[in-house]
Amino acid sequence: METTYKKERQKRFILPEDQIPTAWYNVVADMPNKPLPMINPDTHTPVTEDDLSVLFSREAARQELNTTDRYIPIPEPVRELYKNYRSTPLVRAYGLEKALGVKSHIYFKNESVSPIGSHKLNSALPQAYYCQQEGVTNITTETGAGQWGAALSYAARAFGLELAVYMVKISYEQKPYRRSIMQTFGAQVIASPSMSTRAGKDILTAHPNYQGSLGTAISEAVELARITPNCKYTLGSVMNHVSLHQTIIGQEAELQMHMAGEYPDVVIGCFGGGSNFSGLSFPFMRHVFSGEKKTRFIASEPASCPKLTRGVFQYDYGDEAGYTPMMPMFTLGHDFSPANIHAGGLRYHGAGTIVSQLLKDGFMEGEDIPQLESFAAGQLFAQAEGIVPAPESCHAIASAIRRAREAETQGREDVILFCLSGHGLIDMASYDQYLAGNLMNYVLPQEEIDKTTSKLEKII
Amino acid sequence: METTYKKERQKRFILPEDQIPTAWYNVVADMPNKPLPMINPDTHTPVTEDDLSVLFSREAARQELNTTDRYIPIPEPVRELYKNYRSTPLVRAYGLEKALGVKSHIYFKNESVSPIGSHKLNSALPQAYYCQQEGVTNITTETGAGQWGAALSYAARAFGLELAVYMVKISYEQKPYRRSIMQTFGAQVIASPSMSTRAGKDILTAHPNYQGSLGTAISEAVELARITPNCKYTLGSVMNHVSLHQTIIGQEAELQMHMAGEYPDVVIGCFGGGSNFSGLSFPFMRHVFSGEKKTRFIASEPASCPKLTRGVFQYDYGDEAGYTPMMPMFTLGHDFSPANIHAGGLRYHGAGTIVSQLLKDGFMEGEDIPQLESFAAGQLFAQAEGIVPAPESCHAIASAIRRAREAETQGREDVILFCLSGHGLIDMASYDQYLAGNLMNYVLPQEEIDKTTSKLEKII
Repeated sequence: METTYKKERQKRFILPEDQIPTAWYNVVADMPNKPLPMINPDTHTPVTEDDLSVLFSREAARQELNTTDRYIPIPEPVRELYKNYRSTPLVRAYGLEKALGVKSHIYFKNESVSPIGSHKLNSALPQAYYCQQEGVTNITTETGAGQWGAALSYAARAFGLELAVYMVKISYEQKPYRRSIMQTFGAQVIASPSMSTRAGKDILTAHPNYQGSLGTAISEAVELARITPNCKYTLGSVMNHVSLHQTIIGQEAELQMHMAGEYPDVVIGCFGGGSNFSGLSFPFMRHVFSGEKKTRFIASEPASCPKLTRGVFQYDYGDEAGYTPMMPMFTLGHDFSPANIHAGGLRYHGAGTIVSQLLKDGFMEGEDIPQLESFAAGQLFAQAEGIVPAPESCHAIASAIRRAREAETQGREDVILFCLSGHGLIDMASYDQYLAGNLMNYVLPQEEIDKTTSKLEKII
Repeated sequence: METTYKKERQKRFILPEDQIPTAWYNVVADMPNKPLPMINPDTHTPVTEDDLSVLFSREAARQELNTTDRYIPIPEPVRELYKNYRSTPLVRAYGLEKALGVKSHIYFKNESVSPIGSHKLNSALPQAYYCQQEGVTNITTETGAGQWGAALSYAARAFGLELAVYMVKISYEQKPYRRSIMQTFGAQVIASPSMSTRAGKDILTAHPNYQGSLGTAISEAVELARITPNCKYTLGSVMNHVSLHQTIIGQEAELQMHMAGEYPDVVIGCFGGGSNFSGLSFPFMRHVFSGEKKTRFIASEPASCPKLTRGVFQYDYGDEAGYTPMMPMFTLGHDFSPANIHAGGLRYHGAGTIVSQLLKDGFMEGEDIPQLESFAAGQLFAQAEGIVPAPESCHAIASAIRRAREAETQGREDVILFCLSGHGLIDMASYDQYLAGNLMNYVLPQEEIDKTTSKLEKII
């Protein structure tokens, strides 16, 4: 009766608390070509730590521009709170392998077990901590699907800060539970675009009924931070210091893959602004820079918001209103308005400066996933592994499935590692729409990309 | 700058996979007074394995009546799927201790990290497995808040079974995301009472607009299983075999408390039918039976459904229509209609036979928690530990907070252990109601209890 499984197989790999990495990995120190600098839009001169610390905490600004230190210590109070959920498990996806009938080994780093349900807490905690240490009392931010906002709400509470969150309107309506979570932690949540900022008013008068985008929400949060005393702005992706904080993911994963006695041939993350992709990938990429390893890195983006595969490499703003410094990025243009797909966290026009340079230099690839393929992959994964993935993470799963099938066709047994950035338990309305057959693939005409990218100033 | 935490403190205790217990603990074998038998309502004779296996799988029926084997091996395919999420972490709640300002040590066993978000998977997997092994193709069940239904939906999928779930109507409406989760795994979900069964029709014609209860949903699921070929019924609580499967929780917790170098003075679980309370408590209770330890066990129930503290000890049915055998239980009467509180999983009229005997014999206590106190405890816990607890689990948290404050007042430093049976991320509509001040405490008049309990046949 119990002969199905002959031998005990280890499935989940978890690090003892004393082996959790105590420093973040700063990939810029090892990059053969450093990213081009962020610049001041008026003078076109590189931004300084002083410029950035008007907006961000001083320590975040320092980390943003740090190109030399390979490792940056994680402050002890942050490490203490990391222990609430770290290390997250590395899991061998035996169920998915069986469902696909492939010989490749598929692993996922399960960031969905964070109390907030995603990897976003990894950067929310240090950002809130630095603000508190510097005497800041109020912080602002934006959130797309709500994962970042929920994480920061808890982090703000943990360090005694007041938080105002601009939540992209379409998500505010599609994901009311994420709003409630933020409120349960004590944050204020405002649907964006709102009438509370000039940026919000401008877009609402130009485009009534606009459903919002991350770009607009960032403008509103930045504006509010600027006009509020003792207030800083925080961001959940795109920036170098955010990717830095997320490298805890990949550093743990490398140790855990070692426990499993394997090393990945392919590393995959879904891609919005780049935070979970970067966090998982960069620690593995050090060994590619050094020539020790040949590993493939794939960033999975929605076909409806394809900055990596169809965007241009140019200086652009991080937000819709043009409040931020200009960054060298693969971009669809800062006033590109992404389709209302259900992976709200991936609806962003540009990629961070580090990732953009790495893509340009051929260290990584972008891959476009149509919406229906992403949900089909997510449902298959849910049925095989018992975890309902976030719509964002479904893109990474879809890429992992493509790789496993390719390897099978080509007679290879690859080791495939992807990041399960979050669970989808609060995104069930999206699954409802998928199961009811109401979702579609958005085909993005080239003219739309040309329209917004042609407006960009030619700096590079 | 980093002087706040002098010394590394271990926060989470996780067992290596090879130390996860390989057998369940059958408390009945050790009980000084065995529970009275379940009886056939017509003949008043004890039910047999054959009687029970009309409804349940043969192996579940066998386990239900097993009073002699202290340990029952966990089948290997079930252990394999347990490894997807077990061991669950034992966590020292430093944040909560600090928020309360107490010297007692508070620990929680975090069952919310199961992919389904609660402890229910621990019994769903073996129940589905036994059915599959015995050639069953279809199973039915009921679900209150939806935690059990979600878990069984995944388990049914894992073992290739068709599943129909009767979901209590009030929860079907309050918690649409749980319905979607079940559907994502491929289960059919029907709001109960429904017109698809005689039991449903009877209550809907007698009480139009009835919002449902677990008792009614059980009747519907039992009826459907009876009239469907090759179909068995499964249950997420109350029965002995369910408590048995849940003892994986307490066995792990004991090993993990040992890792932490402590032993609990008090063990607490919220209480609906008894599954998470029993699962955590029974393995610790063995040492009380043997005289080695003096430990206090507290079952936290909602003040609006107080079978342990205000119910009567009598033979009663497990369901509203009277389809099940009669069980010796603390009960409010099988046609007691609990108030529409938000902890849907605790809205059940009776306690299982084992727990009822243990309560009668003074090995454990019941404690009533008003609804507002439960949510206040839940929000405090969320802000302190970052995890939004299920409304059910909030009751256990409230009891833990009461114990910690009592100990403080009395100058003691107790070690308090409670079960975080699930997270509340899908219950945010309830938190919304709480935060908006729309919830109230239900004061249950004695006449209401008398009305339903006085109708019970006097067998004991």
